[in-house]
Amino acid sequence: MDSNIKKWTAEFLGTFWLTFGGCGSAVLAAAFPQVGIGLLGVSLAFGLTVLTGAYAFGPISGGHFNPAVSVGLAVGGRFRWAELPGYVIAQVLGAIAAAGVLYLIATGKPGFEVGGFASNGFGELSPGKYGMTAVLIAEVVLTAVFLLVILGSTAKRAQGGFAGLSIGLCLTLIHLVSIPVSNTSVNPARSTGPALFASTAAIDQLWLFWVAPIVGAVLGALIYQAVLSDD
Amino acid sequence: MDSNIKKWTAEFLGTFWLTFGGCGSAVLAAAFPQVGIGLLGVSLAFGLTVLTGAYAFGPISGGHFNPAVSVGLAVGGRFRWAELPGYVIAQVLGAIAAAGVLYLIATGKPGFEVGGFASNGFGELSPGKYGMTAVLIAEVVLTAVFLLVILGSTAKRAQGGFAGLSIGLCLTLIHLVSIPVSNTSVNPARSTGPALFASTAAIDQLWLFWVAPIVGAVLGALIYQAVLSDD
Amino acid sequence: MDSNIKKWTAEFLGTFWLTFGGCGSAVLAAAFPQVGIGLLGVSLAFGLTVLTGAYAFGPISGGHFNPAVSVGLAVGGRFRWAELPGYVIAQVLGAIAAAGVLYLIATGKPGFEVGGFASNGFGELSPGKYGMTAVLIAEVVLTAVFLLVILGSTAKRAQGGFAGLSIGLCLTLIHLVSIPVSNTSVNPARSTGPALFASTAAIDQLWLFWVAPIVGAVLGALIYQAVLSDD
Amino acid sequence: MDSNIKKWTAEFLGTFWLTFGGCGSAVLAAAFPQVGIGLLGVSLAFGLTVLTGAYAFGPISGGHFNPAVSVGLAVGGRFRWAELPGYVIAQVLGAIAAAGVLYLIATGKPGFEVGGFASNGFGELSPGKYGMTAVLIAEVVLTAVFLLVILGSTAKRAQGGFAGLSIGLCLTLIHLVSIPVSNTSVNPARSTGPALFASTAAIDQLWLFWVAPIVGAVLGALIYQAVLSDD
Repeated sequence: MDSNIKKWTAEFLGTFWLTFGGCGSAVLAAAFPQVGIGLLGVSLAFGLTVLTGAYAFGPISGGHFNPAVSVGLAVGGRFRWAELPGYVIAQVLGAIAAAGVLYLIATGKPGFEVGGFASNGFGELSPGKYGMTAVLIAEVVLTAVFLLVILGSTAKRAQGGFAGLSIGLCLTLIHLVSIPVSNTSVNPARSTGPALFASTAAIDQLWLFWVAPIVGAVLGALIYQAVLSDD
Repeated sequence: MDSNIKKWTAEFLGTFWLTFGGCGSAVLAAAFPQVGIGLLGVSLAFGLTVLTGAYAFGPISGGHFNPAVSVGLAVGGRFRWAELPGYVIAQVLGAIAAAGVLYLIATGKPGFEVGGFASNGFGELSPGKYGMTAVLIAEVVLTAVFLLVILGSTAKRAQGGFAGLSIGLCLTLIHLVSIPVSNTSVNPARSTGPALFASTAAIDQLWLFWVAPIVGAVLGALIYQAVLSDD
Repeated sequence: MDSNIKKWTAEFLGTFWLTFGGCGSAVLAAAFPQVGIGLLGVSLAFGLTVLTGAYAFGPISGGHFNPAVSVGLAVGGRFRWAELPGYVIAQVLGAIAAAGVLYLIATGKPGFEVGGFASNGFGELSPGKYGMTAVLIAEVVLTAVFLLVILGSTAKRAQGGFAGLSIGLCLTLIHLVSIPVSNTSVNPARSTGPALFASTAAIDQLWLFWVAPIVGAVLGALIYQAVLSDD
Repeated sequence: MDSNIKKWTAEFLGTFWLTFGGCGSAVLAAAFPQVGIGLLGVSLAFGLTVLTGAYAFGPISGGHFNPAVSVGLAVGGRFRWAELPGYVIAQVLGAIAAAGVLYLIATGKPGFEVGGFASNGFGELSPGKYGMTAVLIAEVVLTAVFLLVILGSTAKRAQGGFAGLSIGLCLTLIHLVSIPVSNTSVNPARSTGPALFASTAAIDQLWLFWVAPIVGAVLGALIYQAVLSDD
């Protein structure tokens, strides 16, 4: 199989899985009466999509599943800029496909209302009504540290096999902190899929969930390059 | 010991453990008053049965514990078709034995009512009353990705030691998404055991939980073979 | 340092940690108003005591922290019978010390009532009022599988480094299933410590939590020896 | 990059992450209505900060992120006393920066009240109103075992790659036990950051969360040196 198609498929499937598993757990199971999984279960689900995707698809494509991660890795010298467009397109298509399949399943429940559909937002669309500045800071800071963890866990000096564990559970941790703030993006593709299906105005706020994660990723990669690199 | 008996025993014990641990947590502990483990605890339990079974029994039999996985691995060229019948019989017997032992324990509580007994279902028998189409889609998609994760995590290029972690926690993730939809099968043996004991009409719907996981597993294996294989 | 004292200290500390961490989470945090960790948190805590103890103390003593495990490993040919008495004494002393320290902390809360103090029991002393037979079956079956997982995960053919992960999370899984039944023992030392401090009649039922786990452990080891051994 | 600046940056970032992730999950998500992550989610968050930090920054600085750990490692002969001041300053600055950023985000929610801001305390400032003696015992004992786990998991005889998993999840376990008692410190830097922002009198009790963790860490290291060392 052509090496590019293989990589794009891996990124498509991994981002599909991230969005379907993470947003699916939020839409279908978080608030199930009495025994729902809550924000803790959703946080675990998002992290496990990356953990499992990293071990399954990581050896093929590097396991980005996230345009901000791809940009950050390019800034950090771990990914070729020429590969960026193909990766980002595959990621966004995977996330949209995931939201579509999730929509098919979710609407199979009598009386289901779409609502926010696990989209991200600020102000009225933030789960805890956090303002735009708070959401911006949270998304930038969390994506910056995410990149530091990714670059550090996959450095030559690191225990390579554990990178999937560390990076996956880092995404769980990020959600444990910030679902109430922004519903947690740190990933523009993951934000795009559900925004297309939400019955709220999520799509109007989508720009922030492209800008903030990418700014954070670049910031994290620059800090890493400047101070922590083992090159 | 004869190598076949050793493998069948490993599959019997592993599927016993999957069904006893997963369904046991659901029946005995999920809705315990005030401090019950909820769907999150059940999801974790199912995943940990596979994680522990994979490290303990995996080196003996490959650690399938699931007829759909065995079929998918055969389609993917990782398992000999001739071994399939013995594996599937051992798996189904293990799941039935687990449901029987669980029944013995559960009925030791005064006033216990059998009910669904952690069986799978759609429509009225779905925890969230999801219709048959939604359940079909969920089971097919989730088993397909399960196979992709299994085949990817155990490929030659992968970090082999982490496969048990990745595959086990993938099953946790699958449950985090889909317990409200179908009570989560992705495993015909796991569906068969409890259906024999349920006081509901679960047995009438059992066909779907053989068909959908196997279709999904075949689909996942074919996608893997076509695009992602490292052969 | 004398090798025996080193091993006994490791077993003392590991069993202290198991009892203090597991029972401590149950007594102090499980039912904390609104945000308590519940049975899921207690299950995780017990498992993490073994996971952390296995990686920290396992290389010294083998990391049993449980008389039933020591007996099972002796039956399975992985532990010398001559070492059993010293190990069991160290384990029981560690568990008693843990219950004592926990008592000191727990009574530092105004209005604290000792109650069951995380002890094990059947009938009226079972969290879910499960009868003696159900408790016996649960403890025997769960300890038997525990030994199968321990022996399998530490076999020569296994991924050795993952044994601590697999065995620790197996204890989490066991608790996810059976806290409502027996408050989960599978470990006579862990049962002995809290029983000495409980204000209930837990001590009268302590015999069962020595007999059942040891019977289960022997059973598991014999099955393993008969069918699954890689010798 | 100068090796000291690299280490100090790693310790600054790791302690920032520990405090931001752990205290952030507590302040922002623990008590979110209906679906909050509770003390279990906060416990997991604290542990994952160390797990991810250990794999990402550990190869640079050793991954202490905690003045008590640095002192304990120095006592245990694993860290040079001369490096202690630089590490502790970096850790405290990281924790203060984290509390500051968290304050910026948290106040972005209309009607937010600062309150304890995830600070540690005893008596009236203990989540469960535990007295000073109980808090002292808990903090000393838990930090002592934390050091035993750290020293054991990173010993030459240990499975080195798993140390980040073991040590991170040990911090989760410590929180599962003791959040109701002291809000869990075992880390003077983590206690210092939030105390500066709390609207309670947390700062008056801060001395205990420097003294107790350091005493515990020294105790753990001395026990390890005396009995368990593999030198």
